[in-house]
Amino acid sequence: MPRILIVNGPNLNLLGKREPEIYGSETLDKMNKRLDAMAKELHIDVEFFQSNSEGEIIDYLQQKGFEADGLIINPGAFTHYSYALRDVITAIGIEAVEVHLSNIYSREKFRRKSVIAPVVTGQITGFGFYGYAMALSYFADLKEE
Amino acid sequence: MPRILIVNGPNLNLLGKREPEIYGSETLDKMNKRLDAMAKELHIDVEFFQSNSEGEIIDYLQQKGFEADGLIINPGAFTHYSYALRDVITAIGIEAVEVHLSNIYSREKFRRKSVIAPVVTGQITGFGFYGYAMALSYFADLKEE
Amino acid sequence: MPRILIVNGPNLNLLGKREPEIYGSETLDKMNKRLDAMAKELHIDVEFFQSNSEGEIIDYLQQKGFEADGLIINPGAFTHYSYALRDVITAIGIEAVEVHLSNIYSREKFRRKSVIAPVVTGQITGFGFYGYAMALSYFADLKEE
Amino acid sequence: MPRILIVNGPNLNLLGKREPEIYGSETLDKMNKRLDAMAKELHIDVEFFQSNSEGEIIDYLQQKGFEADGLIINPGAFTHYSYALRDVITAIGIEAVEVHLSNIYSREKFRRKSVIAPVVTGQITGFGFYGYAMALSYFADLKEE
Amino acid sequence: MPRILIVNGPNLNLLGKREPEIYGSETLDKMNKRLDAMAKELHIDVEFFQSNSEGEIIDYLQQKGFEADGLIINPGAFTHYSYALRDVITAIGIEAVEVHLSNIYSREKFRRKSVIAPVVTGQITGFGFYGYAMALSYFADLKEE
Amino acid sequence: MPRILIVNGPNLNLLGKREPEIYGSETLDKMNKRLDAMAKELHIDVEFFQSNSEGEIIDYLQQKGFEADGLIINPGAFTHYSYALRDVITAIGIEAVEVHLSNIYSREKFRRKSVIAPVVTGQITGFGFYGYAMALSYFADLKEE
Amino acid sequence: MPRILIVNGPNLNLLGKREPEIYGSETLDKMNKRLDAMAKELHIDVEFFQSNSEGEIIDYLQQKGFEADGLIINPGAFTHYSYALRDVITAIGIEAVEVHLSNIYSREKFRRKSVIAPVVTGQITGFGFYGYAMALSYFADLKEE
Amino acid sequence: MPRILIVNGPNLNLLGKREPEIYGSETLDKMNKRLDAMAKELHIDVEFFQSNSEGEIIDYLQQKGFEADGLIINPGAFTHYSYALRDVITAIGIEAVEVHLSNIYSREKFRRKSVIAPVVTGQITGFGFYGYAMALSYFADLKEE
Amino acid sequence: MPRILIVNGPNLNLLGKREPEIYGSETLDKMNKRLDAMAKELHIDVEFFQSNSEGEIIDYLQQKGFEADGLIINPGAFTHYSYALRDVITAIGIEAVEVHLSNIYSREKFRRKSVIAPVVTGQITGFGFYGYAMALSYFADLKEE
Amino acid sequence: MPRILIVNGPNLNLLGKREPEIYGSETLDKMNKRLDAMAKELHIDVEFFQSNSEGEIIDYLQQKGFEADGLIINPGAFTHYSYALRDVITAIGIEAVEVHLSNIYSREKFRRKSVIAPVVTGQITGFGFYGYAMALSYFADLKEE
Amino acid sequence: MPRILIVNGPNLNLLGKREPEIYGSETLDKMNKRLDAMAKELHIDVEFFQSNSEGEIIDYLQQKGFEADGLIINPGAFTHYSYALRDVITAIGIEAVEVHLSNIYSREKFRRKSVIAPVVTGQITGFGFYGYAMALSYFADLKEE
Amino acid sequence: MPRILIVNGPNLNLLGKREPEIYGSETLDKMNKRLDAMAKELHIDVEFFQSNSEGEIIDYLQQKGFEADGLIINPGAFTHYSYALRDVITAIGIEAVEVHLSNIYSREKFRRKSVIAPVVTGQITGFGFYGYAMALSYFADLKEE
Repeated sequence: MPRILIVNGPNLNLLGKREPEIYGSETLDKMNKRLDAMAKELHIDVEFFQSNSEGEIIDYLQQKGFEADGLIINPGAFTHYSYALRDVITAIGIEAVEVHLSNIYSREKFRRKSVIAPVVTGQITGFGFYGYAMALSYFADLKEE
Repeated sequence: MPRILIVNGPNLNLLGKREPEIYGSETLDKMNKRLDAMAKELHIDVEFFQSNSEGEIIDYLQQKGFEADGLIINPGAFTHYSYALRDVITAIGIEAVEVHLSNIYSREKFRRKSVIAPVVTGQITGFGFYGYAMALSYFADLKEE
Repeated sequence: MPRILIVNGPNLNLLGKREPEIYGSETLDKMNKRLDAMAKELHIDVEFFQSNSEGEIIDYLQQKGFEADGLIINPGAFTHYSYALRDVITAIGIEAVEVHLSNIYSREKFRRKSVIAPVVTGQITGFGFYGYAMALSYFADLKEE
Repeated sequence: MPRILIVNGPNLNLLGKREPEIYGSETLDKMNKRLDAMAKELHIDVEFFQSNSEGEIIDYLQQKGFEADGLIINPGAFTHYSYALRDVITAIGIEAVEVHLSNIYSREKFRRKSVIAPVVTGQITGFGFYGYAMALSYFADLKEE
Repeated sequence: MPRILIVNGPNLNLLGKREPEIYGSETLDKMNKRLDAMAKELHIDVEFFQSNSEGEIIDYLQQKGFEADGLIINPGAFTHYSYALRDVITAIGIEAVEVHLSNIYSREKFRRKSVIAPVVTGQITGFGFYGYAMALSYFADLKEE
Repeated sequence: MPRILIVNGPNLNLLGKREPEIYGSETLDKMNKRLDAMAKELHIDVEFFQSNSEGEIIDYLQQKGFEADGLIINPGAFTHYSYALRDVITAIGIEAVEVHLSNIYSREKFRRKSVIAPVVTGQITGFGFYGYAMALSYFADLKEE
Repeated sequence: MPRILIVNGPNLNLLGKREPEIYGSETLDKMNKRLDAMAKELHIDVEFFQSNSEGEIIDYLQQKGFEADGLIINPGAFTHYSYALRDVITAIGIEAVEVHLSNIYSREKFRRKSVIAPVVTGQITGFGFYGYAMALSYFADLKEE
Repeated sequence: MPRILIVNGPNLNLLGKREPEIYGSETLDKMNKRLDAMAKELHIDVEFFQSNSEGEIIDYLQQKGFEADGLIINPGAFTHYSYALRDVITAIGIEAVEVHLSNIYSREKFRRKSVIAPVVTGQITGFGFYGYAMALSYFADLKEE
Repeated sequence: MPRILIVNGPNLNLLGKREPEIYGSETLDKMNKRLDAMAKELHIDVEFFQSNSEGEIIDYLQQKGFEADGLIINPGAFTHYSYALRDVITAIGIEAVEVHLSNIYSREKFRRKSVIAPVVTGQITGFGFYGYAMALSYFADLKEE
Repeated sequence: MPRILIVNGPNLNLLGKREPEIYGSETLDKMNKRLDAMAKELHIDVEFFQSNSEGEIIDYLQQKGFEADGLIINPGAFTHYSYALRDVITAIGIEAVEVHLSNIYSREKFRRKSVIAPVVTGQITGFGFYGYAMALSYFADLKEE
Repeated sequence: MPRILIVNGPNLNLLGKREPEIYGSETLDKMNKRLDAMAKELHIDVEFFQSNSEGEIIDYLQQKGFEADGLIINPGAFTHYSYALRDVITAIGIEAVEVHLSNIYSREKFRRKSVIAPVVTGQITGFGFYGYAMALSYFADLKEE
Repeated sequence: MPRILIVNGPNLNLLGKREPEIYGSETLDKMNKRLDAMAKELHIDVEFFQSNSEGEIIDYLQQKGFEADGLIINPGAFTHYSYALRDVITAIGIEAVEVHLSNIYSREKFRRKSVIAPVVTGQITGFGFYGYAMALSYFADLKEE
C-alpha cells in the first residue's frame, strides 16, 4: 500500500477560524478526516503533519520522506521564501504535489511567486479542500499504472 | 446535466507528435475520448474545441460560453500574452479552470507567467492528461454540492 | 464626403452584456447607430467593423485603409500587445484616434500600457460612448479647416 | 448653469511663443476666448486659471473646487510628479478631465506617465486646442443627461 | 521652554472635509487646538504651520528652524518626491519626526516611499491624530533626559 | 483590563550587549520592566515574549492572540521576509503596532522593506525604547475612547 | 530536391507600398519571384506563404512543416510576442532561419527582442531582400554537405 | 553687453550656514559678489535670483529669459524631479549651463539623476564656487567668438 | 587554544545521501571527523553544530558565540534569505567565514545572492569539503600572527 | 577592386581547438583561407586581422578603415561591452556587418545583447563559417549594384 | 611648477575627422597645442597622452600619476565600463577632472552613466574644447590658493 | 610536478602602495615570493604574471594555459565586465580558482558581480594574501588525490 505524506505549513492549523471568505469554513482536522476516508477507499496510506516552523517541517520530511511514495504539501507562506524547504524536497528525492487553497495568482503580488514550484511534479491552486483530493487521486492513479 | 467546454489552444492538436519527452505520447483525440468517457460516468456533458487562432477561440467562447456551466482551458502559448482571451473569460462570466500538461514553473522563464490565471477559479499544472481529469472531477463535485 | 473607419477589437461585440459596471449597458449595435446618425449630421461617411481576430482587423485595414480619411479604433485587449496592429496603422499611413470606454489608467497595471498610442494622433480614454463621439467630431472639425 | 473650472499648469501661459511645432501657434489667451464663446453656446459657466506654481493651483482648487461642477485640467509638467495635485482632486471630490495638447505617448519616456490620470474620469491627449473643446462638450453632454 | 514646530503639507487643511474614511472627521484646526492644550501641559511651546506650497514650507523652516528644538512634520504628498524638503531638514540641522495619519504602507504603491524618512529621527504612521501626540510626547520625554 | 502582547523577534534578547551605537545600552529585561510599570499605571495587562524562532512566535500568537486586545511587535529581521508572521497577524485578527528601535529608513537598503507593515494599524520607527511606550499609550488611549 | 518554406508575417504583403525608406520599394510578389528564380538555379523547391493572422501561419506550418526540409521566416511584428509561433517551430522540428529586412537592433526598443530567435538556427537582420537570399543559399549549401 | 541670469534653487540661500563639509563656508551673497566682480571684468551683465519655490523660478525665467543671452542655473534639489523647470528652459529657448557645487555622482543615488541636464548646453559638477566661474567664462568666451 | 564553531545549516545533515553529483558522497559526520583531526594538529578546539531550524542556529550562536574565537558557517539555503542569521553574526561580533560546497555562482540564479556575505571576513565557494579545511587553516594562521 | 576588412575579436584564434560542439572544428586559419578563395572569385580584396586586445582592434580599424569599402567583424566577447569598438565603427564611417558563429540568442543571457549591432548594416548569427561567407556575398552583391 | 596630465581615451585621436557635428572640427593635436599655450601662461606644466587601449592608459597613469599634481581625463567610451580605469585613479590618489566634449546626458542612454565620475573631483560635460580649458583653469586656481 | 599559473589583473602591481586599509601593505613582489616558497614545499611549479591589459592576459593564458594544470586568478576590476577573460578560461579548459583580496560582497555594488565566477571551480574572497595560499593548497591537495 503506497504511503503519502500530507504536510501543511504555517497558519494552516487555523483553517475554519481564519478569513473564511478566502480559505473556507472547514477546520484542518475535519479536512484531514475527509482525506483519510478518501485514502482508505483508494487503498493509500496517508500521514498528516502540520507545523508553523520551517525547521520542524524539514526535520519531518528528512525522517519520513525517504520511506514515503509521495508528498502533498501546502507550504503556506513558506511558498514564497523557504529555499530550505525546496532543498529538502530535492534532497530526499520524493515526488511532490504543491497545493494551495486559494488562487494565489489573483491575490497580492508576493503570493504569485512560489520557490517550491520548480521542484514539484505539479501545482494545484484555487480549489479549496478539493485541491488536496485531486492530489490524492493523482497518486492513486499513479499507483495503478 | 451540466455542460462543460474543454478548449485547447495553439499546437495542442500536435500532442503525441510533438516533443513527447515534455508532453507525453498520447494524441489530443485519444485524450479527448478518455475525457468523454469519464464525463459520461460523471453525468456531465462535455464539448471539445481546439484552435491555433486566438480569434476563433474567442468567437467560440462567445457563442458557447453563456450557455455552459464551466470551462476547462489549456491556453497553450496564449497563456503568456493573450489578454483578449482573459477578457472573454471575464466577459462571459464563466467559471474556468486553467490546465497545463507540463509544470510551467520548471521550464523557460516566459512560461512561468500566466495572464489567464488571475481570472480563473484555479490552475492545475504538471500532471499531463491527468490535469484535465482533475478539472472535470472538480466540476462534477461542484454539481453535487 | 470624408470616410472614417470605426473599428472595434476583441470582445467589444459583447458590449451591454459584459460587465456593465465598467463598460455601460448599451450594445455595440446601438452605439454604432448613434454614431451613424451623428456622422450623417456632420456629413461624414462612416463604416463599422468589429472582430475578435487580430489578423482580420489587419486584413480589413489593409483593404479599406488606403482609401479612408481617418480611423477611430478601440483595440480592446490588443491595445496591450498587438505590435502587428500598430504596424498596419503606420503602414497604411492613416490618421488614427485611439478610443477606450473605461479609464485604462485607473484599472489593472497591464491596461495602462498602449503599444498603439505612439502611432496615433491622439488617445481618448474614460468617456464611454462619448469617446467615439469626440473622435468623430474631431474628424469633422478637421475637415472644416 | 453648471460651472466648469479650466486650469492650465506651468509654462502653458507661453503657448504660441513656445515650440509651435509641438504646441501650435495660438496663445493661451486666444484659446481661452474660443472656449469661453463655446461655453456660452453650451450654457456653461467657465472660469480660467493658469499658474506656474503647484501650491497656487492647489489653493485655487481648494477655494473654487467645492462649488464647481467639473474641472478641465492640463497639468503641464506637473502631470508626471505632482501627487499633491492628484490628492487635491480626490480631496475636493470633483469630476475632472485631463487634457494634453500633444500626444504624450509619442514623446520622451517621462511624459508617458501621468500620476493624475488614475483619479480623473478620462484623459484626452494629442488634439491640441480641440482637446479642451472635447472636454467641454463632455460636460455639456453630461448636463443634458 | 522648548519650541517645537508642527508643520502640515498640502491638502491637510482639508482634514475633516476630505475622505473621512481614510483621514477621520476632525478638522486640522481642532486637531491643532488639542495639540496646543497637550503642549501646554507638557511645558512645550508649539507653533503651527500649514501650506500647499513646497516653497513656502521651505521658507518657513529656514526662518523658524534654526531657533526651534524640534520639528513634527506631516509632509502630505510631498513625502514622495520633495527632495527640496528633505534638504532643508538636513540643512537647518533640526531633529524631526515624520507623521502620517493613515498607514502609508497599506495604500497605493507610490505612498510607500518616503524621501523624507532617511533624514528624520523616526517615523510614525497609521495612528491618525494620535501620531502627532506621540511625536509631541517624544520631544517632551527628550527634554526631561 | 485590556491585555496587550509585547513580542520581540530574533536577536532582540541581545539588547544592551549588541551594537549599542545603534540599539542603545538598555537590556530587553530592563526595557520590559519599564513597560510593565508603565502598563500598570495605564491599567493595562501586558505579557512579554521573545524568540529567535519564527515558528515559536507564530505558535505563541496563535495561542494568545485570540484572547488579547492588541499586539506590539518588533519583528527584528523577520520584518523583511516573514510572510508567515504577516499571515498570522491577519489570521488572528488582532490590532497590531509594529515597532523598530532604529530608523530603518536610514540604514541598509534591505531594512527599508517591511512585509509586516501592510497588515498593522501603524508603524513606529527610530525612537528606541520610546517607540514601545508610544505604542502602549496608543492602546491605552484607544481603550478610553 | 529539398523543399523550403518561405513564410512572411503580418503587413509584409504591403512591401513596396509601406515606408519605403525602411523596407525598400520592391513588392513582396517581385521579391518572391526573384527568390523562386534563385531557388531553381540552386535546385531547391520553394513554397511561399504570407498571412496577417498568427493562427493561419501556425495552421500552415502544421500542414506543410513536417514534409519540408527548412523554413525561412520573417515573422514581422509577431517576432516580438508570438510564443505560439515559436512553439510550432519547435513542435514540427523544422530547421528555421529568421530574416528581418531592417536592422531590428537600431530601431525602437520593442523591436530588439525576438521570441523566435532562441529556437532557430540563425538570424539574419538588416540586409533587405538580400537576407532571404542568404538564407536560401544557406539551405543550398547545407544540401551539398 | 551680454546679459546672463544666475539662478539658484532651493536651500542655496543657506550656503555657508549649511553642511560646510559638503558645500563650503562661503555665503551665497559673497559668492554672488565675487561673480559680479568677475562679470564686470569680462564685460558681462549678470543678474542674480534665488528662490525656494519652483513656481517663482519659472515665473522669473519667463519674465527675464527671453531678453537674456544665457542662464547659469544650480537647480538644487529641483535637479532631480522638476520637469516644469526643464520645460521652461526649452520653452524660452535660452542657452543654459547647469552647475552643482558638490560632485552629485559621488553622493546618494537620487542625486545622480538630473532631469535638467538633457536640455542644457553642458553640466559642471563638483567644483564648488569655481563651477559658476567656469560657466561665466564660458559665456564670455562664447561672446568673443 | 582558540575555539572555532563549525555550523552547518538546513539539509547539510543529508550530505552523502543527497545529490552526490553536486555535493559529493562523504557524510557530514565523516567530514566533521576529518576536520576534528585536522584541528587537533593545528591546536585548535572545534565544536560542531547542525540544525534545520533558523531559530536553533541563532540560539546556538548566542550561547556559544561570545566565548568563541571564530565561526565557520555553511548556512545552506538560509544563505539566501535569513537576515536574522546575518544579524546574529554582527550582534555577537564574531569573526566568521562563509563556506559553500558547490560553486553557488554557476547554479540557479537565487543561489548567487548571499545575505550573509556582507558581514563575514571572507567567503569560500566551490571546493567541497576542502572549503572547510581552508577556513580552518585561515584561523590557525590568524592565531600564529 | 573593393577592399573588405575581416576582423575577429578575442579567442577566435582558438577556433578548432575550443569547444568544437559550439564553434565547430575548423581553425581560423583554414576558415580565412576559404574566405580568401571565395573573395578572389568575387573579385574582392580581403584583409584579415585578429586580436585579443580591444585597443589593437581599434588601432587597426583607425589605420585601415578609412581606405576600406566594408568591414566584416566578429567581435567575440567584445560584442557585449565594448562601446569603444562601437564608437570606432561610427567614427570611421565604414559599412559593417556583424557576424557570430553560434546563435547568440539561444545561449547565456549576457550573450544576447550586442552593443555593436545598432551601428552596423546588419547582423548574421548562428551559421558558423557560413555567416562570414554570407557577409562577403553581401558586399559582392553591393558592388554589382 | 605644478604638473598636470591630460589623457584622452579611445577614438579621441580621430577628433576633427570624426562626426564633426557632434565633436567639432578641430583635431586633437591642435586642441592640445592650444591647451599647451594656455598652460604656459598659467605656469603649469602639462603632458599629453592618448591611447585606444585601456591597459596602456593604466600603465601610463601608474608611471606618471604618482609624481603629477592633477589629471584631466576624457575617458571616451571607457567612461561607461572601465572599472579598471576608475581603480587606477583611486589607487594613485590623484586629483582628477573628467571632461566630455559633448553633453553625454542628451545622447544615447548608455552614455549617461559614468563609472569614473564617483572618484573624480568634478565632471565637465558639453562644452567641447572649452571643457579642457575650464579644467586647466581649475588646477591653476587651486595652485594659487 | 604540476604547473600552476598565478595571474593578477589591473592595478594589482600597485599592492602595498595602494589603499593599504583595503588591500594590505605587502607588495605584489613580496607576496609572490611567499607563494613561490610555499609552492616549493608543496612540490608545485608556479609561474607569475601581471598585466593591466585584458588583451595581454588573454594572450598569456592562450600561450601557457594549455600546458598548465591550474590557474589562480585575481582578475581585479576585469572581474566585473571582462567576458573575454571568461571566454578564454572556458576555451583553454583549465581548472581555475578566482581570488579576491578584499571581501567583494561588502563593498560598492558593482564589485559584487563577477562575470568570471560561473566558469571557475571556486571563488575565495576576503582573506588578503591568504586567499592565494588557500588556492595553492587546494591544487596541492588535488594532486595528491
